[in-house]
Amino acid sequence: MSKTPINLQNKFSQFSEYWSPRVIAEMNDYQFKLAKIKNEFTWHVHHKTDEVFLVIEGTMSIEFRDGDVELSAGEMYVVPKGVEHKPYAKEECKIMFIEPRGVVNTGDAGGDLTAKNDVWL
Amino acid sequence: MSKTPINLQNKFSQFSEYWSPRVIAEMNDYQFKLAKIKNEFTWHVHHKTDEVFLVIEGTMSIEFRDGDVELSAGEMYVVPKGVEHKPYAKEECKIMFIEPRGVVNTGDAGGDLTAKNDVWL
Repeated sequence: MSKTPINLQNKFSQFSEYWSPRVIAEMNDYQFKLAKIKNEFTWHVHHKTDEVFLVIEGTMSIEFRDGDVELSAGEMYVVPKGVEHKPYAKEECKIMFIEPRGVVNTGDAGGDLTAKNDVWL
Repeated sequence: MSKTPINLQNKFSQFSEYWSPRVIAEMNDYQFKLAKIKNEFTWHVHHKTDEVFLVIEGTMSIEFRDGDVELSAGEMYVVPKGVEHKPYAKEECKIMFIEPRGVVNTGDAGGDLTAKNDVWL
């Protein structure tokens, strides 16, 4: 059993692509993922699971059809299952998000922003 | 649906007791909990679930029977299910930890440090 902690900034330093989640840890059947995000993501929904966003550095918003949530570093938000949402960051933002293993980043929407799943750092 | 982000430092400002977890969010059947910790916790084990620790401010260690893990702010660690461990912090440390709803902080060990479960902030 490794006794090495998972250092978030160290992990962020190992990739630069936007909207390209990297798995850094698993807890039971849930995964902790890091992403660097900038500009608009796509509207999508996860029908079977909630999704947690935690901002590590920078600011982002999560747009909903009935309003937005603004998140800064040290803030988190739970997107309930079945609720359509669109992440957005004006400037580069570093986030951690948590969801069950196997969840695709674009949910039901597909498209060019769909990332390869289960890519570990 | 609330559009208010969960601000970790704001939540930490609302309690002062050590080893007294506060639930700040739920994702499916998992809970996100905050705790302020200082000094020794008790040796214990969670037989049915992994447990994730993320240090928000300060430093802590997680002692295992075969060695320790040292964690600073911005670092996390997954304690695998079934592995006996003892959290420790020389000075006050603010942590977030994530585990399924219903997990008792002292696991199988019981004792004076067993906290009331499911206390929300």
